[in-house]
Amino acid sequence: MTSVPAAAPAASPLPASPTGDATPDQAPVYPHASPLAPTPEVVSKSHLAVVDRRRLATAIVYCEANFGAVDGKTANGLVRHSEKYDIVAVIDSDKAGLDSGVVLGDGPNAIPIVFDLEAGLAHADHVPDHFIFGIAPSSGMLSDHERALVLKAIGLGMDIVSGLHEFLADDPEFAAASAANGVLIRDVRKPRATKDLRVFSGRISEVECPRIAILGTDCAIGKRTTATVLTNALRDHGLRAVMVGTGQTGLMQGARYGVALDAVPTQFCAGELEATIVEAYEAEKPDVIIIEGQGALSHPAFSTSSFILRGSCPQAVILQHAPGRAHRCDFPSMAMPEPHSEIELIETFADTRVIGLTINHENMDEAQVDAAIGQYERELGLTTTDALTRSPASLVDMVLNAFPELAGISSAATR
Amino acid sequence: MTSVPAAAPAASPLPASPTGDATPDQAPVYPHASPLAPTPEVVSKSHLAVVDRRRLATAIVYCEANFGAVDGKTANGLVRHSEKYDIVAVIDSDKAGLDSGVVLGDGPNAIPIVFDLEAGLAHADHVPDHFIFGIAPSSGMLSDHERALVLKAIGLGMDIVSGLHEFLADDPEFAAASAANGVLIRDVRKPRATKDLRVFSGRISEVECPRIAILGTDCAIGKRTTATVLTNALRDHGLRAVMVGTGQTGLMQGARYGVALDAVPTQFCAGELEATIVEAYEAEKPDVIIIEGQGALSHPAFSTSSFILRGSCPQAVILQHAPGRAHRCDFPSMAMPEPHSEIELIETFADTRVIGLTINHENMDEAQVDAAIGQYERELGLTTTDALTRSPASLVDMVLNAFPELAGISSAATR
Repeated sequence: MTSVPAAAPAASPLPASPTGDATPDQAPVYPHASPLAPTPEVVSKSHLAVVDRRRLATAIVYCEANFGAVDGKTANGLVRHSEKYDIVAVIDSDKAGLDSGVVLGDGPNAIPIVFDLEAGLAHADHVPDHFIFGIAPSSGMLSDHERALVLKAIGLGMDIVSGLHEFLADDPEFAAASAANGVLIRDVRKPRATKDLRVFSGRISEVECPRIAILGTDCAIGKRTTATVLTNALRDHGLRAVMVGTGQTGLMQGARYGVALDAVPTQFCAGELEATIVEAYEAEKPDVIIIEGQGALSHPAFSTSSFILRGSCPQAVILQHAPGRAHRCDFPSMAMPEPHSEIELIETFADTRVIGLTINHENMDEAQVDAAIGQYERELGLTTTDALTRSPASLVDMVLNAFPELAGISSAATR
Repeated sequence: MTSVPAAAPAASPLPASPTGDATPDQAPVYPHASPLAPTPEVVSKSHLAVVDRRRLATAIVYCEANFGAVDGKTANGLVRHSEKYDIVAVIDSDKAGLDSGVVLGDGPNAIPIVFDLEAGLAHADHVPDHFIFGIAPSSGMLSDHERALVLKAIGLGMDIVSGLHEFLADDPEFAAASAANGVLIRDVRKPRATKDLRVFSGRISEVECPRIAILGTDCAIGKRTTATVLTNALRDHGLRAVMVGTGQTGLMQGARYGVALDAVPTQFCAGELEATIVEAYEAEKPDVIIIEGQGALSHPAFSTSSFILRGSCPQAVILQHAPGRAHRCDFPSMAMPEPHSEIELIETFADTRVIGLTINHENMDEAQVDAAIGQYERELGLTTTDALTRSPASLVDMVLNAFPELAGISSAATR
């Protein structure tokens, strides 16, 4: 197994790790690069659909001590893109006073980070419609302070939106408070009732359009963002593209079709995704369906992608990779996999093919991204791009080359 | 891809399918063979641990219309082996009056099949301690008749044991009735509270003994039975062997360590198994741990084995296969995979190796089993046996050849 960027001595202009510890099994790190953005989710806003915020319900997002970090990825995602909520402020006392867009490296977005709920209310000048719990505490439990905060928001008449594995609506105290105050609690991760969960049936074979899954080599590496950018690029090209979300952030952002797969019992995981895709197909009759991946097929802890491959039976996969990431985000002792090994695993596990590679440019500068794209294209023989900094045309070409029948549809639509 | 038994013309004495429809991608069927047993779970009782039934709590198992069939596998398993319950009768009006052991093809076991609960009580001559719901209704919901039956058992003071995905203790009517009658409801599949679920941590690396997972090429193919037989054979050989169950039947049978993985949200699946194995290791300090598999890694609907490989990080895998099974048990249009393709998939998916093949002899006679064992050994280069009809020594050899360090331990223990 070779580290692609580091192993081709003549062709690679990417610097080796100055720490000198990049073994053939480790991806190099680029600590001296001028990063394009501090987080894996930076979005050139022009690549995302434009949303008229004035028609949306307003919301404050709670992300104490974690805004911009991996555990704040729900808040980070909502600040960047939401078709459902107009985010008026983010609560994180550590970064109070900063602009949330600046913290994410996207440039100012006029959504301030505030010290606490009171400061958020003062800024909003009204009580927002929703209080969104936008952080995943590693304990899995709310602290006493957080419980009090949720109760306070309920008392103010705000609906509660939560992506926690612990369902707030099932908590007797929250349930009573929400009933007394006439507010709703939306647990985004909560699966349907067990009796209504669906097992895989094979009905996915009735979906006649191409299905493309966006998988990755790690967690929190930009699969959802690439799926969103790709879906919008295909729409701009005249194709009816539908995205099926598989995580809580995409569902909060307003994905019309989706299920938070990591909260579904394994017995039903492939079936719930299959059924969701069939519903999207029947309702929208799209030309192509894009499926958001989760974790990584090779991941030691989070390999829900196995059910994504089984449930969606995608004809094609696009793989998201971060050449500048040294180790798996939750496992500092575990080196990142190389794209070629992940591709071999995916193509052995499922009857599909990887049609392209997308780069997450964290810890890389422009020159390094250029070099990595060139090198992966040569070594893997796959179209490679950065969905955020390059033209969406590369993503569209990736799809049209794999599915030439779509070219006719899209030119007919744009003619 | 070739069908192993059918494809080697000179060596194979197994008849080709007389229907003539065994294509190279389909396993042959043997409709004219005198089957060794009608179900995949026949057990030579001498291969299972002997249990003194008199010290056990008594139980009636409900398995209406499904005893001996795939959807009755919990009842089938309990009648054959239970370290926790003394099964006094099985309820199945279709087969009332028959001996449950005879129906399973094991020979008489003095556990009668009765028409209904009343007949079971009359036979038992007392109210048994437990009412076990031993069937998985495909709707996932209890019928009105079944609800009434459960309430009746509660009214009689029987504790309720259920392996359903729908948790009976969460049902308000059942909860009230059990409280009023002072009985317990044990939902075997119910995972621990969400806040207590564990994600994969890497602590599996602290488990220093070999871990062997028993995987299969299909559902309901005998993985649990082979795991049980192997564990007992290793113990008889002087090794401290611990089995970790992963399904509801094994837990009902009395597995000391285990978790019903198909009811665990995917986020926690690898972690719950890892934590269970670490607990077993710390408590028992065994020489070897055997892990029951679920479904099949290649299965379109039930690929929980992906988390079993990730969570247990087994150094070795034994693969259970049914050469006489024509298609996957839940998917009549889907051919069974061949062992060689499942082995390739397993060894690509995880850093492990398959050390042996075990045969489920359904739809086969003795000569066909002989031939299949010989042929798989030649073609795959793997020790192959039938855990139920052959000497357990083959299974022990499989393990000792793969882990020679265990030979020293076992001879020391038996010296």
